[in-house]
Amino acid sequence: MTPGFFTTIEILGTFSFAVAGAFAAMENRLDPFGVLILAFATAIGGGTIRDILIGDLPVVWLQSNLTFWVILIGALITLFFGTYLKKFDRMLFYFDAMGLGLFSVIGIQKGMLNGFGPGICVMLGTITGCFGGVLRDVLLNNVPLLFRKEIYALASIIGGVFFLLLLKWGLDTKVATITAIIIVFVTRMVAVRLKLSLPLFYLKKPG
Amino acid sequence: MTPGFFTTIEILGTFSFAVAGAFAAMENRLDPFGVLILAFATAIGGGTIRDILIGDLPVVWLQSNLTFWVILIGALITLFFGTYLKKFDRMLFYFDAMGLGLFSVIGIQKGMLNGFGPGICVMLGTITGCFGGVLRDVLLNNVPLLFRKEIYALASIIGGVFFLLLLKWGLDTKVATITAIIIVFVTRMVAVRLKLSLPLFYLKKPG
Amino acid sequence: MTPGFFTTIEILGTFSFAVAGAFAAMENRLDPFGVLILAFATAIGGGTIRDILIGDLPVVWLQSNLTFWVILIGALITLFFGTYLKKFDRMLFYFDAMGLGLFSVIGIQKGMLNGFGPGICVMLGTITGCFGGVLRDVLLNNVPLLFRKEIYALASIIGGVFFLLLLKWGLDTKVATITAIIIVFVTRMVAVRLKLSLPLFYLKKPG
Repeated sequence: MTPGFFTTIEILGTFSFAVAGAFAAMENRLDPFGVLILAFATAIGGGTIRDILIGDLPVVWLQSNLTFWVILIGALITLFFGTYLKKFDRMLFYFDAMGLGLFSVIGIQKGMLNGFGPGICVMLGTITGCFGGVLRDVLLNNVPLLFRKEIYALASIIGGVFFLLLLKWGLDTKVATITAIIIVFVTRMVAVRLKLSLPLFYLKKPG
Repeated sequence: MTPGFFTTIEILGTFSFAVAGAFAAMENRLDPFGVLILAFATAIGGGTIRDILIGDLPVVWLQSNLTFWVILIGALITLFFGTYLKKFDRMLFYFDAMGLGLFSVIGIQKGMLNGFGPGICVMLGTITGCFGGVLRDVLLNNVPLLFRKEIYALASIIGGVFFLLLLKWGLDTKVATITAIIIVFVTRMVAVRLKLSLPLFYLKKPG
Repeated sequence: MTPGFFTTIEILGTFSFAVAGAFAAMENRLDPFGVLILAFATAIGGGTIRDILIGDLPVVWLQSNLTFWVILIGALITLFFGTYLKKFDRMLFYFDAMGLGLFSVIGIQKGMLNGFGPGICVMLGTITGCFGGVLRDVLLNNVPLLFRKEIYALASIIGGVFFLLLLKWGLDTKVATITAIIIVFVTRMVAVRLKLSLPLFYLKKPG
């Protein structure tokens, strides 16, 4: 892959994940150390859970200074300029959607490198993209938003399935990656605009 | 081991764990994706935590299509026929108790293969049998039921201790496994019938 | 290292962590099995998370009978003599502060052995010292105290930074370790006496 393009998306995605974690922590009145932890947990939680399940240890971010600093800066900016940052809500949402797309593809590729089947690969992509948020919510003592939110995990799954199909149809990895990111991005955009959620299935109360 | 017999129990146990997870998710009004996640977490959580602690990675279910499909089908059946499935409550309880027994034995055997002492082996059996439920409760933002429920973990421990004793007394692994499963099964049966719980120890309020 | 001195601190630290976990469980009215689990989670949680992230598996305590028994005894004493033990509150607090210091240093040394940078090493020290408590709070369905408490993680970080500096200045590992433990100990002492907390940063409510 060209480092330039994908690295940029990865940095922006990591940054927006870290900011989202820091905001959630501040809304729950955590102290600055808690804000830092939540920024880290949100930004690297998904990849960490994936790497632990696969056994690809030590986890990557222990060895990557870039990730460390991007998250630290994201957390500090949120701490000191949070009110101001709120004005860039929409931009952060865009970064988040792109990050979700890229992280999903990264997870799938890790799965393929380890020789897993396509279903498991898509699952690893979803874990990479979504489980940082799950970890954040568990630490904040909330039922994970992911389980109730507008099409989020599903966007990752749709993008992942297309990524695998495009590869199968003979497309270049780079083109497939970009297409998958766009699909995830557009799916998120549409879901949030139209406030789409998955239908709920309730148990009938015994009458 | 004869694949036929134990594989059947494993499938039934996994199925009933997945159904229990899916039910818990639906009662908490999660969306279908959340239901799926909770089914997976409940069914494979225990074995996953055990394999991570031991370092036996990638975790087994990443490589087992059977487990994947059993859980997926369990979750889908619960989603669409949940109200109907409730009628088979008792049957699911039997499956769960058998699964608890078998999973405990599997955990112990993994511990023995890794050369751990008997106390640690029994602990690994209990982790395998019980910690999927703990993970489910943490994700649903509840204090784990296990910590308050009728003799559940204790059934696993009793079965595990007997399993090790039977092996020491020279019994065949297969016979010991079946005996341990029966012990766990009966312990659970009796505990639920008689509503047995462990006694609580409270701190005296400073008065 | 001289086994005598550091092993003693490790045992006292593990013991006080286990007691703290058991107390928290009893205050939440868990049954004896839950009390046991919480004692274990609090005492070994930090080191376990560290070893999983690094990939140093199986985790140490699976192979250490000493740790197992110290925790078990700590949990049982708390169960049966909890009210009496409360009188030794201050002593347990001292053990806890010393344990925090030693565990932080142990985590940093593991990081150095794995060739990580100084920032990551300090982080691993903090994870070792503090994340057992985080795990305990997650299991008890509370927002981790660590994120709101008087200078706790910060004490670990300060001690860790000094430890690395002292090594760099050419001091013996043993001397550096003892100094770092004293620094953590004193920081905790002062923080609790003066009820120091990190300042909170709140988001301005949109007016």
